[in-house]
Parts: sequence; C-alpha cells; structure tokens
Amino acid sequence: MANSQLFSLAFGIGTQNSKGEWLEVWFPAPRFGPARADVQALLDVLGHTEGNADYALDDATCEALATVADGDEAAALRAFGSSDKPAVATVLETDDELGSTPQTYLKLHLLSHRFVLPNEMNLDGIFPLLPNVAWTNAGAIDLEELPARQLEARVAGTPLHVHCVDKFPRMADYVVPSGMRIADASRARLGAYIGEGTTVMHEGQINFNSGCIGPNMIEGRISQGVTVGKGSDLGGSASTAGTLSGGGSIVISVGEECLVSANAGTGIPLGDRCTIEAGLYITPGTVVQVLDEERNFVKQVKARELAGQHDMLFIRNSQTGIVECRTNKRAIALNETLHANN
Amino acid sequence: MANSQLFSLAFGIGTQNSKGEWLEVWFPAPRFGPARADVQALLDVLGHTEGNADYALDDATCEALATVADGDEAAALRAFGSSDKPAVATVLETDDELGSTPQTYLKLHLLSHRFVLPNEMNLDGIFPLLPNVAWTNAGAIDLEELPARQLEARVAGTPLHVHCVDKFPRMADYVVPSGMRIADASRARLGAYIGEGTTVMHEGQINFNSGCIGPNMIEGRISQGVTVGKGSDLGGSASTAGTLSGGGSIVISVGEECLVSANAGTGIPLGDRCTIEAGLYITPGTVVQVLDEERNFVKQVKARELAGQHDMLFIRNSQTGIVECRTNKRAIALNETLHANN
Amino acid sequence: MANSQLFSLAFGIGTQNSKGEWLEVWFPAPRFGPARADVQALLDVLGHTEGNADYALDDATCEALATVADGDEAAALRAFGSSDKPAVATVLETDDELGSTPQTYLKLHLLSHRFVLPNEMNLDGIFPLLPNVAWTNAGAIDLEELPARQLEARVAGTPLHVHCVDKFPRMADYVVPSGMRIADASRARLGAYIGEGTTVMHEGQINFNSGCIGPNMIEGRISQGVTVGKGSDLGGSASTAGTLSGGGSIVISVGEECLVSANAGTGIPLGDRCTIEAGLYITPGTVVQVLDEERNFVKQVKARELAGQHDMLFIRNSQTGIVECRTNKRAIALNETLHANN
Repeated sequence: MANSQLFSLAFGIGTQNSKGEWLEVWFPAPRFGPARADVQALLDVLGHTEGNADYALDDATCEALATVADGDEAAALRAFGSSDKPAVATVLETDDELGSTPQTYLKLHLLSHRFVLPNEMNLDGIFPLLPNVAWTNAGAIDLEELPARQLEARVAGTPLHVHCVDKFPRMADYVVPSGMRIADASRARLGAYIGEGTTVMHEGQINFNSGCIGPNMIEGRISQGVTVGKGSDLGGSASTAGTLSGGGSIVISVGEECLVSANAGTGIPLGDRCTIEAGLYITPGTVVQVLDEERNFVKQVKARELAGQHDMLFIRNSQTGIVECRTNKRAIALNETLHANN
Repeated sequence: MANSQLFSLAFGIGTQNSKGEWLEVWFPAPRFGPARADVQALLDVLGHTEGNADYALDDATCEALATVADGDEAAALRAFGSSDKPAVATVLETDDELGSTPQTYLKLHLLSHRFVLPNEMNLDGIFPLLPNVAWTNAGAIDLEELPARQLEARVAGTPLHVHCVDKFPRMADYVVPSGMRIADASRARLGAYIGEGTTVMHEGQINFNSGCIGPNMIEGRISQGVTVGKGSDLGGSASTAGTLSGGGSIVISVGEECLVSANAGTGIPLGDRCTIEAGLYITPGTVVQVLDEERNFVKQVKARELAGQHDMLFIRNSQTGIVECRTNKRAIALNETLHANN
Repeated sequence: MANSQLFSLAFGIGTQNSKGEWLEVWFPAPRFGPARADVQALLDVLGHTEGNADYALDDATCEALATVADGDEAAALRAFGSSDKPAVATVLETDDELGSTPQTYLKLHLLSHRFVLPNEMNLDGIFPLLPNVAWTNAGAIDLEELPARQLEARVAGTPLHVHCVDKFPRMADYVVPSGMRIADASRARLGAYIGEGTTVMHEGQINFNSGCIGPNMIEGRISQGVTVGKGSDLGGSASTAGTLSGGGSIVISVGEECLVSANAGTGIPLGDRCTIEAGLYITPGTVVQVLDEERNFVKQVKARELAGQHDMLFIRNSQTGIVECRTNKRAIALNETLHANN
C-alpha cells in the first residue's frame, strides 16, 4: 500500500559528464513531506508508483509536469524544458539509504533549506554517491575532462577559475536560506544548516550535516555532525571536534547561550549557558577540577564526565595551570551537578 | 555660510534592485577634503548648495559634469553616461551621521583608500543603511530576486556563483590600494585599511573600520575597530578581540613592532614592541605575574591593568603554568613601569 | 658538451601587461627530466643549443613545433597557435637560479605536478621575478591597468571580481593533481605539493614550496618550506612555523603518522608517530619535561633539543601546567631516546 505522505519530491536541473553521469543537481524548491494526494498528479506524469526513484525529464515531460504544477514549480519546470541542461525528478517515498547522486543532492538541499536538522536524516552511503568535481566559474566539471576545458578556456582568453575540488559544492550556490549572512560563502558546504538570524564570519566554517539553530554568531568551525544551539557563539577559530575521541560514536553538540571563545575548542558536548575561555581546548581526556560557586574544590574528573552539563565555565587558572570548571556566572539557574560533592 | 572645505565628494556607479533601491555603489576615485572652490563648478551642475546629499545622475548630467571635470574623473563620468547602470554623485559637506546607502559606501571607500584611519570617522547608523546582498559573479543581487536569477542562469548553462551573502562586499572588488598583497581577497571587507607594504596572508582577516598602518604581515584577524601599528605582525590565526571585555568601550589596538604569534590573541590594547608567545591568549581578566628583566617577581595584576604598555613579553611558563609578563628582550628602551615595584 | 638530460621543457600560454611583460604563464603539461634525444626535434625548431632560455612562440612556430610533437602536446601547441594570447617555450637545461617569469612559473608547476618535492629545487631569485598581480574572473591583470579595467567592466554591467592580489596565483587554476580534494582552492598557492589521497579542508593552507606527501588530512597551515609526511594529519588551525626560531635555517617538517591536533602548533621538526594535543603550541624555546612510558621524569629540555625525534606525545598537564613529552602510546616501536636517562 502506498504511503500517504512522501519524504520528499523535487525537480532539479544539473550537470552530467560526457558519459552522462550526474556531477551535481540543483533543486530550486524541493518539497518536504508532501501529502501523496497533493502530488499524485505529478507522480502520475512520471509513472511513479512506489519506492525511491529518479526520473530523467525530457522537454515533453517537463511540459506535462508543468501543466499539473502550480506557480513557481510550474515556471521552473517550463524553464527546465527550455534548457539543454539535463533535468531530473527525484521521488523519495522514505528516508532510506541513499540510492543515487540526485537523491544525495536532494537530501543535502533539505538540510540547507532547514527542513531537517543535522543527524536526523539517513545519509548512509553518501560518499560513493558524490563524485569529486572541479567547481569552476563555468560550473561543475568532471576532473578527467578538466584539462581539455582549461586549454579551451585559456586559448579563448577566458581562463577557468577552479574554486574548489571536492565532493561537496558550496551551499550558497544552491541554497541561500532567509535571514542569514555568510561573509565568505566558500566556508559552508551544501548540507549545512544555518538558522535564521545567524552571521557566519570569514573564519566560520560549517560542514554538511552540521550547523546552528539560529540566531548565532559563528566565527569558528562546526564539524560534521555537530549542532550549535540558539543564542550560542563560536569565537574566531573556535573548534568543535567531530566525534568524542575515545568515545567513538558520541556526537559533539553545543547547547543554547554558550560561548566557545576565540581560539578555544571542545571535544565534549556542552549543555546550555557554558563558556570556554579564549585559547583553551577541552578534550575528553582533559583532567578538570570542578569548583563550586565560592570556587571551593568539589572534585577532579576527566572532562568527558562533564559531557552535556549546563552552566559550566572552563578556564585554565593562569596562576596554577590547572584547568578548572567553575559555575558559570552568566547562568541564571545554578547547576546542581556542580555542587554535588561526590 | 558654506564650508570652505568639503568632507568628501565622489561620483559612483552601482546596482539597484528592481524597486530602484541601492544595493551597492562603486566610487572609482573619491575626493577627500576638497576645497569648495575646486569643486564649485561640479556642485553647480548638481545644483548642490548645502548639506550631505546624493544626486542621481542621468546621461546628460554625467556629460555636463564631465565638461567641468578633469582627466580620469571626466573619463569616468563620460563612461557612466554611456552605461545603463545607475550613477550617483554623493556630496558630504561634513562627517555627520550616515544618511544613505551611497554615503555609507563612500565612507567605506575613504577607509580603504587610506584617506581616513579606523575610528576617525562617524559611522553611526551604518547597519540599517547597508542592505544584505548576494554578491555573485554577476554582481550584486537582491536576496529576494536571487531565486529567479539563479533559475535563469542555470537554464542558460552559466550557474551563478554566490561568493558572499553579507552587508559588506569584499574590499578588493572596490579598492586595491598601492603596495599591498592579499592572498585571499575574500578576507577583507570594504572599509578595511591596509597600509603600504602589507601582506595579508590567506588566514589574515580584516573587518571594516579596522586595519593596519603598514608595513605589516597579517596572518591573523583584525576585528572591527582594531588598528595594528607599523612593523607589527599577526601570526596565523592570531586574534584581536573586538572590544575590551568587561571594559565595554575601550578599543583594542596593537602598537608598533609587536608580534602576536600564531594561534595567540589579545583582549587588551598593546603598546609598542610587545610580544605574545604562540598559542597564548591574554584576556583582560587573565591574572599575570609581572617580572623584571632578571625575571624577579614584581607584582601580580589582571592583564587589563597592563593595557597599552610597551615592551611586554607575555608567555605561559611551561614549568608552572603561570602567565608571565617579562620585559621584552626585543625592546631597545626599558619599560620603567615594569620595574616599578609597587 | 650538451646535457644528455634536460631539467625541464614546457610550452605555455599566458598573460602579458600592456608593456609586453609576463604576468603569468600556464604550462598545461610540462616535461620533467626529458632525455635530450627525445626532445631534440623540438629544440631544433626553437633553435635552442644550450642554457636556460625562454622563446616567444608565434603562430608559425607553434605549428612547426606541433608537427614534431605528439598527442596532447601537439594539440596544445596547435591551440596556442590559434589563440591571440602570448605563448612561450621554456627550456631549463639545469636547475640553476631562476632567470625569468616563465621559468619561475614552470618550476612552481613542477612542484604542483609532484615532479619535485619541496626544498629540492633551486628557487633563488623567485620574488623579484613574480610580479604582483590582480587575479580576477577576467584573468590576470596588471595592477596599474586595473582601475581602467574595473571601469570598463562596471560600465558594461559585468563587475570585475578580484580574487587575490598576490605574486602567486592559486594552484587549482593551474594544476589539479590526481586523487586529491581541496574544499577552498583559494588556500593553496601554485607551487604547493599536494600528495595523492589528500583532503585539504577549508581551513587548510599550503604555501608554495611546501606540502604533504599524501595521504593526509590537512585542516591547518603548511608554511613555506614545510613538508608533512604520509599518513599525518593537521587539525583545524594547526600551525607549522616557517623556520626554526632561534635556529634560523633549520626547516620544520612533520614526519609520518603524526597528529598536530586542532589549534595546536609546532616550531620544531617532528619525527614519525608524534602527537601534539589540541591547543598546545610547541616553540623551540618551550621547556619540556620528558617522561618515560611509566610517566616518570627523565629530563628537562628545551623543545628544540627534541627536534626530529619519533614517538613523542606533547601535552600540557592540566593539573600542573607543565608541558610534558610522553612516549606516544600510538607508537609501535619505543623511542630509545626518551628512555635515555641522561
């Protein structure tokens, strides 16, 4: 029996290499979670009945789809039909393992369009489905075809500029979500989640399947799988480790109203209202002295034992060299854990 | 009575959105502090009598201005007249609060052309006057108009490349001052002041209304409002805090012949001939032991009390963890303050 | 007597300023170390008999060369002949001091094509031979000619984008070696050596005459002259100092299977299987306590005395502030030096 709701449905236009293999696909306005009834007419044109699938769109199919589509979607489909670039319809009935390059690009779009938070979607199989591509001012170019294209462009006096050689394109060339700024768009990959009200400065960096809820000031690096909560700031060159070293599968995150200061870093998840002073890196194995609000010694632990707790202020005491975890004075609510004298 | 000298006068060409609102203006050769007598003929063509004002320039006005202008300015005005892009004359009688987008762009140009040092010009009201813009290989695009432009470009096979989504464009697209290098031009905003003889490496970053006097080697971040003196170097990822935390309005600066080493940072203003060792971040609240030139203990202070002093060498003693302020051996003159045993 | 083997021979196409001076040259497929016999027919067309020399190529010479060349080289020469951009043949009989801009560009190509490792080629005289250039979406532009080109482009509605103002162009615009990724191509200069299997993330930076053997994960900065061995990683914002401070001419390198963690740095050469913990910067003058594998004190030394040793793990003890060098647990073989109780 057919699902009453699809995971996603989208129409895209993209680039193929000379062998007809997809290099990339742009989906201008993907649908997320549409009711089947609302898209049945589109599925009928495609001949889609079940499963996750991609459909190459010729000009006639684009036109047929446009007649049953509305507004912007209809306009895009007609534009696709008028182009000599290849177009595709991608139907995801379910959030199953990735099955094609268009499906992978679609899921990356869903993240950057803020339909899905990091770590909430099945991205299994992503790397083999993303070809390594030369991203240039003339669009995506297959690496094997690049030398010939370079020669052709040079001779014509219009040298190719290769922005990036990577499996991932830059987010802003595909999706520019509302209410955000990014000072150097080369720093966020497609699949980054950048929340409303966020400014990503030149030194900010956001990987795919990672991001910040917004509003945030991001001047540091958000590694793959990491999420930064609302109202938190990453200072310049601040670092978030990709996974909990020694822990393996534990994902790093930064809670709300936190400050990871300039040149600082965290290898443990932080709860809300935490601060790490400038220049201090907390690794899971860092031995930390926990102090109470009168700065009396409470206990000595490895930082990993403090994972996810709220209202922590980490500093390296500049008179002793000891890394301390104090109760964060910025905190409104006291953190009971820090006061437990165990 | 009219001022005998204007603050600035400039002719620009720029981009407007479909509503006729300015997105950005390029002023190829702004005049700074011209005598009124020297520009009276130009003001007469504009019909300008007093105040700060912008004048939209049609083709006939461009031609009329060109007939009373000289050399490059006349050539630029004639070129503006031949273009279908909108042109503007901006007259600033005084350095008053900003009144329009062209006036804001003009003042940012004055900084990057080295007419005015950071913090010496009235930039009140800057943020609302700078629209957030998609900066692309096809120029500035209004964010609301971006999706349609992306579709159009894609269908034509020439995908838009969005370099940046920001209120500020990149300096080098507007002003390339003499005698400097910048390895990645995306790292300096229009309004950066980059002095003669300076090299900004890939990791350097310079905000608007901030900069370095030159010559300098900049591989770190110069925050808004910060100025770095001549002969000083910022190592890779070196950080300068935007304002003195806890102090509020005190502006950070770095004096002459300083070295803020790689991965180091300062949250206090530094005088001349200061060094911060690699990896050490001095915040205003860092407790520091001041040592004399024989490395005897002099006093213990918070770093903010050392703000602006000369000949300081900051290190974290790797045998005790204590942050020390030693007399900088690179210094020629001894710093009396460091020897005052109070 | 003529050399039986040439150092290099290459045909290039490039850009000259309005005075006919070279700004840059692209050599699509330079030959490294060809036997003289194999290229004698090409040298005969050029009239080359001895020494290092550049030959301007007119259309007829391009055609003549193409008739004695093979395959891709012949195709490139014919393409050069059909272009109105200037072409050049550069013959390097020997690895002597650089003698021209094309020769300099050729040697930078040899590095990025992985023909020569960093520090193995004579680059004396490089800086005066590399003009400072505006690198734009319209190619290389002489800085003196930039304002006129900007005006022309603006008036036409196609504003120039200045990517970079530097003596060095970006590597990927010239050479994209096999089997590597670089997330932001603006971060590697022509002359970078990026080995097979390497990923350079957004925060990675690779200067000319420096690089990594591959495979590597590079998220930090490789300074001029520094080489990183196979299997080693530089974490985000990790720093390698350009030369050994205090030592002068000693070149920094990182051995195999090392990890310089995020926000860490080294000012000394590291042997194999070394680790520096996140956030710790080892300068040559850092006083270090060497511990044995049971963490007993062995000796206290300045870090420069540990230069080049294997199996070192550097941490700053978070309970004492002491910088320690422990035997790296990741090491297979024990390091005898660390156990020598002298």
